[in-house]
Amino acid sequence: MYFQERLQLTTTGRGTYNVSGNVQGVVSRAGINTGLCHVFLSHTSASLMLCENADPAVRQDLETFLSHLIPDGDPMFAHQDEGPDDMPAHLRTILTHSDLTIPVHNGVCALGTWQGIFLCEHRTQAHQRVLVVTVQGE
Amino acid sequence: MYFQERLQLTTTGRGTYNVSGNVQGVVSRAGINTGLCHVFLSHTSASLMLCENADPAVRQDLETFLSHLIPDGDPMFAHQDEGPDDMPAHLRTILTHSDLTIPVHNGVCALGTWQGIFLCEHRTQAHQRVLVVTVQGE
Amino acid sequence: MYFQERLQLTTTGRGTYNVSGNVQGVVSRAGINTGLCHVFLSHTSASLMLCENADPAVRQDLETFLSHLIPDGDPMFAHQDEGPDDMPAHLRTILTHSDLTIPVHNGVCALGTWQGIFLCEHRTQAHQRVLVVTVQGE
Repeated sequence: MYFQERLQLTTTGRGTYNVSGNVQGVVSRAGINTGLCHVFLSHTSASLMLCENADPAVRQDLETFLSHLIPDGDPMFAHQDEGPDDMPAHLRTILTHSDLTIPVHNGVCALGTWQGIFLCEHRTQAHQRVLVVTVQGE
Repeated sequence: MYFQERLQLTTTGRGTYNVSGNVQGVVSRAGINTGLCHVFLSHTSASLMLCENADPAVRQDLETFLSHLIPDGDPMFAHQDEGPDDMPAHLRTILTHSDLTIPVHNGVCALGTWQGIFLCEHRTQAHQRVLVVTVQGE
Repeated sequence: MYFQERLQLTTTGRGTYNVSGNVQGVVSRAGINTGLCHVFLSHTSASLMLCENADPAVRQDLETFLSHLIPDGDPMFAHQDEGPDDMPAHLRTILTHSDLTIPVHNGVCALGTWQGIFLCEHRTQAHQRVLVVTVQGE
């Protein structure tokens, strides 16, 4: 059984957004007990990650780290069509994830205690983002 | 239904190769409507990524970034058996992806407008690479 | 058919642990011929990767690289609750993988010759880790 939903999400610019509840909603509507939940983000300047879900400082430190590793507006980048955050957004996406698969056990995403599913907006401006969630199982 | 094909690809050395058409070919031959397409690269010195598919400067900037982050021949690396690009190729692989899963909707890979599936050859020499594509759905 | 097992593993602290045999054990017990094997690590300070499985220097060089890229105790990190390796462990996890999917062909994980599945413990102390393996196919 394959159950697929397309979710529209609006971000308010660069930052991390906990979408664990949105994803679990699809799993619940799919009505399976055991299987897998696949989450896909249809963009090249935003991405997905599993990250510690309790202390917001973790995600602030992630931003600190990424902005040191891939500085916005670095003159080494030729592709700057949409501004200084354009190429860094592509690189942040490639270094993290565009798709995640989570086991489903007893009808729920079997995440660890501290795991949350986050959408990472890498552009500084607000964007509309599309998440395709596919649940399979029995 | 599980439909599995093994594709042989030849690279001409370090660079990125758009394999979206090859992957869609397998999905079309599988003949499913809704499901998932899994792409796996059986190597530790080449990898997969989803990347912006329009402006080649994006992938040139990726190369610029990776060659700064992981310089070929860096004396900090002990493993140099096959040359200065040997250990950097393993690290580039670990930081990107060996497998990707793409949703299938209406018989096609539901990629975003700007998303392409790329094989990244991290060795400087030409190589034969094997991609295992598994399509499931109904 | 979905066959799911939860494996408890004990690490002895920071390092890489080859779990290819543990994962293949689940695939063998599932008794399928063709399909996919999904491996999921339920933690935010340990991760998974596919890596060269022959020369231990590769994984030592990986440690050298990661400890340069993300120094333990770097004062730029605010989140240091559990010590200098706390935030670096989260970042190492995000830059590698929490889940991997491997094709199953003729009843075995179709890994390349040099590919091993490794659990990466990013904390310096020993930990108990949980791996959820889900096998599907026919």
